[in-house]
Amino acid sequence: MPQGVIANGFVFLSAIRGVNESRNDLPSGVEAQARRAFEISRHILTEAGSGLNDIVRIGIYMKHLQESRPGFNKVWTELFGDRGPARFAVEVTDIGGAGDDTELLLDIIAVVTNRPG
Amino acid sequence: MPQGVIANGFVFLSAIRGVNESRNDLPSGVEAQARRAFEISRHILTEAGSGLNDIVRIGIYMKHLQESRPGFNKVWTELFGDRGPARFAVEVTDIGGAGDDTELLLDIIAVVTNRPG
Amino acid sequence: MPQGVIANGFVFLSAIRGVNESRNDLPSGVEAQARRAFEISRHILTEAGSGLNDIVRIGIYMKHLQESRPGFNKVWTELFGDRGPARFAVEVTDIGGAGDDTELLLDIIAVVTNRPG
Repeated sequence: MPQGVIANGFVFLSAIRGVNESRNDLPSGVEAQARRAFEISRHILTEAGSGLNDIVRIGIYMKHLQESRPGFNKVWTELFGDRGPARFAVEVTDIGGAGDDTELLLDIIAVVTNRPG
Repeated sequence: MPQGVIANGFVFLSAIRGVNESRNDLPSGVEAQARRAFEISRHILTEAGSGLNDIVRIGIYMKHLQESRPGFNKVWTELFGDRGPARFAVEVTDIGGAGDDTELLLDIIAVVTNRPG
Repeated sequence: MPQGVIANGFVFLSAIRGVNESRNDLPSGVEAQARRAFEISRHILTEAGSGLNDIVRIGIYMKHLQESRPGFNKVWTELFGDRGPARFAVEVTDIGGAGDDTELLLDIIAVVTNRPG
């Protein structure tokens, strides 16, 4: 499955999780995972002629909404300040691989601002 | 975080919950919360040059899907009749603030029909 | 509610479940439901001047994420090979009707490639 699909001036990203570069393990805690998730997003978006500041909507799926929100919001504020994409967050019973430590999954829509390179 | 983000002729709303104007409490029950959620949506959409009838897709997240659907659908029918946006509804384990009475959260995409005012 | 809403070159589908033609029962198991879900999607998309290969993003909601993913991916690979839409999958506590056997629900966005017929 592709990492991002471009259509009509938007790019739709497949599920973003904050995995380490090895793609086989996850840093511990939602804050580290959120940082990695946005690093990965930035890379995919840049390839698509977009970027973090071009994200228009993020669906945030967490395993532990109340516990994870403060750490996630800390990273969010560092990246976006008091602006940023439209967003919503919900807690679900499972995301990621069987029994792994995925704490969050992002569903991202961005606009394409540059011709993809 | 913004209440709505405009891009390429669409407006993406951040999580809509049916909070009272004080923003600190919630009316009791899904029907009252749905009414408030659509009032809030209407206000944000109007600011963006859109409106309730310009919504094209709603993701509906509920804490109690089966119990809440009839009350939600009552409000839906009043607003949209037998037409309306594309929609889906799922039950999740948590939305909103810690221990509050949020019964539903809406993830809304609409089209911009007027130049934002 | 409509099966699909067209706006700005996209079509947004309402919740797709893998129900049988009677609309009253569900085939057993996620693989059969996934096949039916994509058959139904294909029909609605074709009516809208779109098609399965024009899907750009799928949100996948499952009752049993780990158990269902292999069967779902089998159908996915048959339809899309190693390409396909952007996607994410999460496990939620309820979808579909009260006590029924709905195993998955799809939230689909596609591009309109032909004038709707």
